[in-house]
Amino acid sequence: MGSARQVAAGRGRPRDASRDAALRQAAMEVLAQVGYRALTMDAVAAHARAGKATIYRRWESKLDLVIDTCNQLVQRNIPEPDQGSVEADLGEFLTAFATFLTGPVGKAAQALVGELPHEPELAHAFRESFLLPQRDVLRRIIERGVRRGEIRADAPVDTVVELAGAGLMYRLMLIEEPLDARFVDRILHEALLPLLR
Amino acid sequence: MGSARQVAAGRGRPRDASRDAALRQAAMEVLAQVGYRALTMDAVAAHARAGKATIYRRWESKLDLVIDTCNQLVQRNIPEPDQGSVEADLGEFLTAFATFLTGPVGKAAQALVGELPHEPELAHAFRESFLLPQRDVLRRIIERGVRRGEIRADAPVDTVVELAGAGLMYRLMLIEEPLDARFVDRILHEALLPLLR
Repeated sequence: MGSARQVAAGRGRPRDASRDAALRQAAMEVLAQVGYRALTMDAVAAHARAGKATIYRRWESKLDLVIDTCNQLVQRNIPEPDQGSVEADLGEFLTAFATFLTGPVGKAAQALVGELPHEPELAHAFRESFLLPQRDVLRRIIERGVRRGEIRADAPVDTVVELAGAGLMYRLMLIEEPLDARFVDRILHEALLPLLR
Repeated sequence: MGSARQVAAGRGRPRDASRDAALRQAAMEVLAQVGYRALTMDAVAAHARAGKATIYRRWESKLDLVIDTCNQLVQRNIPEPDQGSVEADLGEFLTAFATFLTGPVGKAAQALVGELPHEPELAHAFRESFLLPQRDVLRRIIERGVRRGEIRADAPVDTVVELAGAGLMYRLMLIEEPLDARFVDRILHEALLPLLR
């Protein structure tokens, strides 16, 4: 949907990728500040010192803008390590993801969460663009470990993948203690690896 | 603070506990519908078919009302099973809590989560009245198991307690699959008990 519109927009004038990135950054910052419900295209335009028309040429609605922002951020910030060891790969991935969440992205994600029950399209997009990519990377890391014989063939992979994501999001949103490398090290060595090996 | 005010209010007229409960129920329903930011004492009064003055006699602000509502709900709905077995106690507690969260309380909690970063008093109260009581029950269940010799003395209790809460909240708020007895059974037997024994 977004890409078809982008192609159409591209016919009129060349796309400026760095301008788009600045607009997405502004969208994320406004989202973190005021939440999805109160976010307006006007506020994003003002925050980015851009005209509202500039934004509407690229995204037809705030839903479209927020979804595209989530997609791009996750694609650029989720690594897929492959060092030949589940311990190393999970450690690298979870640390990178924790760092990513600790910044403004985490605040924006938290602002979205409260509004998901009232915004089914947003909820669907949030899952597809934010949660499933993390889950898929975790699953592939573990599956490579199964093939190498590091991981039990009957390990509870679905449960471990879900609890890894749950642990990060819960600490980000609800627990006062920091979502840091020490926390990642703890869930990795006290829970995830013992359940897999 | 709340209790001092309640005593003061009580001097003027006798407290009506069932009326208070109806007002708290209305507060929770409005919260689930519109979120904390958009909740007003007027809306709660209208939803409960009560006068605004009736509400202000009991709670001085929406923060006060929402905190008291959380406190009362959690106190009445969190069981503390003690059947002599960690498996039975964790199963009973997690199933009861999952059921509790699946109703309107879960929607209200989710509506609060997005607003916690902007509302430090609310965030503090949410942790104290909603999260810590769950955590404390889980910890006591496990500690009784340690004393009975069911649980390893060096089990990672903090991590298991945190991941149990995380698993429930993550599924409630972010995952489409249901937060049901089957899910509880799965995390219990595939993750929590194996980590403790």
